[in-house]
Amino acid sequence: MNNWHLTTFGESHDTAIGGVIEGCPSGLRIDQQLIKDDLARRATGKTSSASQRRESDEVEFLSGLLDGVTLGTPIAFLVRNTDAHPEDYAALKDTYRPSHADYTYQAKYGIRDWRGGGRASARTMLPYVVAGAIAKQLLAEQGIKITAVVKSIGGETEPKRIEALLAECRSKGDSVGGIVHGSITGLPAGLGEPLDDKFQACLAKAMFTIPAVKGFEYGDGFAMAGMKGSQANDPIIVNEDGTVKFLSNHSGGVQGGITNGEEVFFNVAFKPIPTIGRGDRHDVCALPRATVIVEAMAALTVIRF
Amino acid sequence: MNNWHLTTFGESHDTAIGGVIEGCPSGLRIDQQLIKDDLARRATGKTSSASQRRESDEVEFLSGLLDGVTLGTPIAFLVRNTDAHPEDYAALKDTYRPSHADYTYQAKYGIRDWRGGGRASARTMLPYVVAGAIAKQLLAEQGIKITAVVKSIGGETEPKRIEALLAECRSKGDSVGGIVHGSITGLPAGLGEPLDDKFQACLAKAMFTIPAVKGFEYGDGFAMAGMKGSQANDPIIVNEDGTVKFLSNHSGGVQGGITNGEEVFFNVAFKPIPTIGRGDRHDVCALPRATVIVEAMAALTVIRF
Amino acid sequence: MNNWHLTTFGESHDTAIGGVIEGCPSGLRIDQQLIKDDLARRATGKTSSASQRRESDEVEFLSGLLDGVTLGTPIAFLVRNTDAHPEDYAALKDTYRPSHADYTYQAKYGIRDWRGGGRASARTMLPYVVAGAIAKQLLAEQGIKITAVVKSIGGETEPKRIEALLAECRSKGDSVGGIVHGSITGLPAGLGEPLDDKFQACLAKAMFTIPAVKGFEYGDGFAMAGMKGSQANDPIIVNEDGTVKFLSNHSGGVQGGITNGEEVFFNVAFKPIPTIGRGDRHDVCALPRATVIVEAMAALTVIRF
Amino acid sequence: MNNWHLTTFGESHDTAIGGVIEGCPSGLRIDQQLIKDDLARRATGKTSSASQRRESDEVEFLSGLLDGVTLGTPIAFLVRNTDAHPEDYAALKDTYRPSHADYTYQAKYGIRDWRGGGRASARTMLPYVVAGAIAKQLLAEQGIKITAVVKSIGGETEPKRIEALLAECRSKGDSVGGIVHGSITGLPAGLGEPLDDKFQACLAKAMFTIPAVKGFEYGDGFAMAGMKGSQANDPIIVNEDGTVKFLSNHSGGVQGGITNGEEVFFNVAFKPIPTIGRGDRHDVCALPRATVIVEAMAALTVIRF
Repeated sequence: MNNWHLTTFGESHDTAIGGVIEGCPSGLRIDQQLIKDDLARRATGKTSSASQRRESDEVEFLSGLLDGVTLGTPIAFLVRNTDAHPEDYAALKDTYRPSHADYTYQAKYGIRDWRGGGRASARTMLPYVVAGAIAKQLLAEQGIKITAVVKSIGGETEPKRIEALLAECRSKGDSVGGIVHGSITGLPAGLGEPLDDKFQACLAKAMFTIPAVKGFEYGDGFAMAGMKGSQANDPIIVNEDGTVKFLSNHSGGVQGGITNGEEVFFNVAFKPIPTIGRGDRHDVCALPRATVIVEAMAALTVIRF
Repeated sequence: MNNWHLTTFGESHDTAIGGVIEGCPSGLRIDQQLIKDDLARRATGKTSSASQRRESDEVEFLSGLLDGVTLGTPIAFLVRNTDAHPEDYAALKDTYRPSHADYTYQAKYGIRDWRGGGRASARTMLPYVVAGAIAKQLLAEQGIKITAVVKSIGGETEPKRIEALLAECRSKGDSVGGIVHGSITGLPAGLGEPLDDKFQACLAKAMFTIPAVKGFEYGDGFAMAGMKGSQANDPIIVNEDGTVKFLSNHSGGVQGGITNGEEVFFNVAFKPIPTIGRGDRHDVCALPRATVIVEAMAALTVIRF
Repeated sequence: MNNWHLTTFGESHDTAIGGVIEGCPSGLRIDQQLIKDDLARRATGKTSSASQRRESDEVEFLSGLLDGVTLGTPIAFLVRNTDAHPEDYAALKDTYRPSHADYTYQAKYGIRDWRGGGRASARTMLPYVVAGAIAKQLLAEQGIKITAVVKSIGGETEPKRIEALLAECRSKGDSVGGIVHGSITGLPAGLGEPLDDKFQACLAKAMFTIPAVKGFEYGDGFAMAGMKGSQANDPIIVNEDGTVKFLSNHSGGVQGGITNGEEVFFNVAFKPIPTIGRGDRHDVCALPRATVIVEAMAALTVIRF
Repeated sequence: MNNWHLTTFGESHDTAIGGVIEGCPSGLRIDQQLIKDDLARRATGKTSSASQRRESDEVEFLSGLLDGVTLGTPIAFLVRNTDAHPEDYAALKDTYRPSHADYTYQAKYGIRDWRGGGRASARTMLPYVVAGAIAKQLLAEQGIKITAVVKSIGGETEPKRIEALLAECRSKGDSVGGIVHGSITGLPAGLGEPLDDKFQACLAKAMFTIPAVKGFEYGDGFAMAGMKGSQANDPIIVNEDGTVKFLSNHSGGVQGGITNGEEVFFNVAFKPIPTIGRGDRHDVCALPRATVIVEAMAALTVIRF
C-alpha cells in the first residue's frame, strides 16, 4: 500500500482544515463512527484536563467515495472551523509568544496567520486523525492493532497523582508535559527498508511531526545506552517448522530497520503546552488528547510500507 | 539547496560501497582532506576501543568533477572493500544471530548476504560520511557548524571511568551502549516546514537511519515531559532594530518545526553492539566512531533545507 | 520555486472538485479575476462549439490566505458540482462506452464512478486551471508569458472552414480532433535538468495528463525527423558583452534538456471527443476550451523549475 | 514493483558512467548476455552508419548481487570510459557548438565539462540501457514484450533508400533525423494513474529524456487531430465470460491514462545529430542505435507501475 499519501491543509482560525488521501485502496467501506470516535478523543481526551474549545468537528467528504465505499481515487475531506474567534487573538498580532512558532513563521514567510497559531496550531493534527482512523481500519483488517496510552504526566504515573498535578497546574495557570506510550502489534516480519526508510526512522519522523514532541525512543530506548550487549540482546530460536521465536524484545520489534514480527513499542515525550497564565480556552496538558494523534501517526506510517 | 539527494549502495563484503550525490551545487572545490579525516574518524574513532578491521577506505570519484571542482551533475564515488574476508562468516550462513538483521532480511527478501552483515553492516554508513564531509564543507561556507561528541558510555561520563568500562567489556567479550551529543550552530532562522518536513522530524529520521540508534531527543528532550510550562518556556525579546533575542533555549533551536536561529542540540542513544563473545575483529562500543556519522547525518539533513 | 506541488481531487458528479497547492511563495495577492477569466475559458471556450453544461464554477478558498495574500502554507480550494445530474448517467452503470475510461477504471479498481465519467471526466482539469492561473500570475511577475491557441481543428486552419466543420459535426452528432499550439516566452536560460527532469520531458508529461491528448512535439518536432543537420541546426553567436544570440530556433528553446532563453513552442494533438451520437450536453470538439488547460499545464511545469 | 528507481551518473569522458537501481526485486538471476547484447546494439546499431567510437563497454557490478542473484538491495554498476580522448575536444573549450548543450550547461551551472559533451553526451544513455535490459528480463517473465524498430530515416522508409540517404550524408559530412516505432505487448489492463501519472504521460516523459527527441505520439497520434469521433473510437465488446474484446486500437492501448490490455504502440521523432561537417568519430544518424534506448526507456517506465 505504499502509494498512500496524505496532503493536509488549513489554519486554525481560517475557513476550514482538511486533507486529501491518495493511494487508499478501492472497495473499503469507511466506518464513519471510527472517525467520529477518534475526533472526540482528539477534541476532549475524555478527561477534565482537555481544552474548552468545542468544535463540532463535522467531517465532510468531498470525493473518492461512491455510496460510502472508496473508489481508489483521492479522498478529500474538510472540517469547518465553526468555533473560530480570531478577534480573541488580535492582541497577538504584533507579539511573539514565548516558545510558540510566531517568530519562526515570521522569519520563514515574512507573514503569519496570528489567529490562534494559524498553521502552527495543534488543530492542524485533525486531518491526520481522520486519515489515521481510516488507516487503522485498513490495518485492523490485516490484524494490525495500534494503541497509545498516557505513560506519565509531569513525571507522575499514578492516576491520582496525575489528577492532583493537573488541578494544581490549572489553579496556577501553569501547564505540564508528559509521555505517551505507543504499541503496534500484529505486524508481519519484513516491513521497512535497510537504510533510508527504516521502519523506526519513518515512525520517528511521524512522531516529531506532532507539535510539542521533544523525544522519541523505541524498544528499550535510552536505557539501552547504559546496557551491556549481554543484557540487551534478543535471542532467537528457529522452530522445527522454520518459524522463529524471540526470547525477549529489547529491540522493540525491529532489527536492521525491518520489522521482525514482534510488538513495536515506543515512547513519545511531550513538552508542556507553552500557553500559560490563562485558565480559559486552553489545555493544561497535551495529554491525554495526544494519544489518538500518536495512534494516527503510527497508522499513517505503517500503512505506507 | 533542496535538490540535494544521496543514493547509497553496497554490501559490507561485496565489491564496493559508495554513493551518488545529486543536486550538489556547481563550483565547489571539494577538500579531499576533510573527507579523509572523517573517514579516519569513522574507521578508528581515534581511540583504542575501535574495530580492528582496517580498510584503506580510499575514495574514488567517478563523475561530477572537473579538475576537482563540482560540475553540478551527479557525483558518484566508491570505496572498494579491500579487507573483506567473507570466509570468516561462512559459519553464519545458516544462523540468525541475536539482535542482528539476519532474520529480518531473510523475512523481507527471501535471500540475504550473510558475509559480514551485508547491507545491514555499519560499514554502509561510509557513503554518508563521504557525502556528509562535502555537505559540512558547503555549510561551513555559510557559517553553519556541526559537531558531535560522546556524552556517555554505559551511563558513565568521566573519561577515566569510560576507559575502565571499555577495558572490562573487552576482557569479558561484552559490549556497551552510549549517548552521542550533537550540536548545530550558525543556522539561520526559517529552516523547516510547518508539518510534514519539520526540521526536527527530518533530523530524527536521519539519526534513526544509523544502525543501533534507539532514541533521539532535542532541546531539553525527555526531561521536558517532567517540566511545567513556567520552567520550559523560552522568553523572546524584540530588540530595537527588529532582531530578536532568546533568554533561554529549552526548545533546542526549533519552534513549530522551523529553526529560530539558536543552537540546535540533541542526543542520540546507541544500544550495545550485538556482536559479543568475540574479541577479535569487532568493536566493544559503537562510540566514539559514531560521532562522525551523527555529524554526517545532521549535515545531510541541514543541506536539504 | 521547486517546492510547488499541486494535489487534485474530485469526481465529475460527486460533491466537489478541487486541489491543494503546496509550496506557493508567501506574500502574493492572488488576482481572483484572472482565475475567473480562465475558468470561463475552460467552461465555454468563448465559442459556440462549447459544452452546454454550465457550472457556475465558483471557487472557494479554504486555507493558505490572510486577507487575500498567500501565507506560504497549503492553499486549498474547491468548486462544488452544482450542475450534477448523475441520474442522466444511470444507463451507463453497466456499460463500457467506446474509447472512454469505463473499462480501464473497472479493471484497475474493481469499482468505478459511472456518473459522468467520475475521475476520468475532463472536468478534473478544473483544479489545474485554478492553480495554473495562480502560477501564470507568479510567472508574469518574472516576465514569463504563456499562451496557447487553436492551430487546427480536423486538419483545418481557416476559421471559416473550422466553423463549417464544427457545424457539420454538430448536425451529425459527430466530434472532431485538433491541435493546440503553445508558446512560452521570457524564460531565463538554465531551466531544466540534464537527464531525468529535462524541461521538455516535464512539459510533455504535463500535456499528456490532459484527457484526449495523443501527441506532443516541440520546436520543429516531427518535421525534424525528415531534416538534415545542416537544415536543423541553430547557429549561436557570442556578442561582445558575453551574451548570446541564436540565428534560428528549430530547437524550440531547449538544448540538452535546459532552456536557452529563446521561445519554447510546441504542439499538442487532441483526439476527437469519444462521446458521439448525442447533441445535447456534450462538446463537438475539446478545442478551443483546451487552450486554457494547455496554458495551465505549461505554467505548472515552469513554476517547478 | 513501483519502488524501482534508477539513479544515473557520469560524464562522457570522465572516469566512468553508471547507475544504481533501487527497488529491483530479490531472487532474480540477471542474464548478463541480455545486457551485453543491448550494449552492443547501443554501441554499433549493427549497421555501418554507427559511430566509430568503440568502447568495450564492460559492465562492472558493485553491489546488490550474491552469486549473480539480486538481493533486493541497491544494484550499482559502472562502465569505465576506456576510449576517452578528451584532448580531441580541447578546441571546444571556449566554443558553443550550434544545437548542442554547451551554452545551456554554461548558463545553468557556470561551468561545464567540455570533453565530448560531458553529461549531455548520448553516452549517458548507457546506464539506462543496462537497467533497461534488467527491466526487460523481469517484464518478459510476466509476458510483457517491448520492441522498437526504425520506422523512417529522413522521411524514407525503404531500407535501400535509407542506405543511399545515409551514404549521401556521410559523404557530405551531414546528418539526418528519423522516427523510431515502439511496441509494448502483453500488458495487463489497469496500469497507470487517472491523472498525475497517466501511463502515456510517464512513457512520454521517459522518451523525451533521450537526447535529440523532438516528438512523441501514441496510438494514432497526431493523425487523430484530423479525425472524427466516428472514425477514431474503439468499440468494446463484453464477452459472455466477462472478458472484453476491442474491435480496433486507435487509442494505442490506453484509456483515461490506464492500460486496457491491448498493444501500446508509439512513435518517437529524433532530430538530426547536430555534429556535422566531420566524418570521423561521429554518427550520421542516431538511428538505429536509438532503438535499444527507446526499448530501455519503455521498460523502465512499465516496471514502475
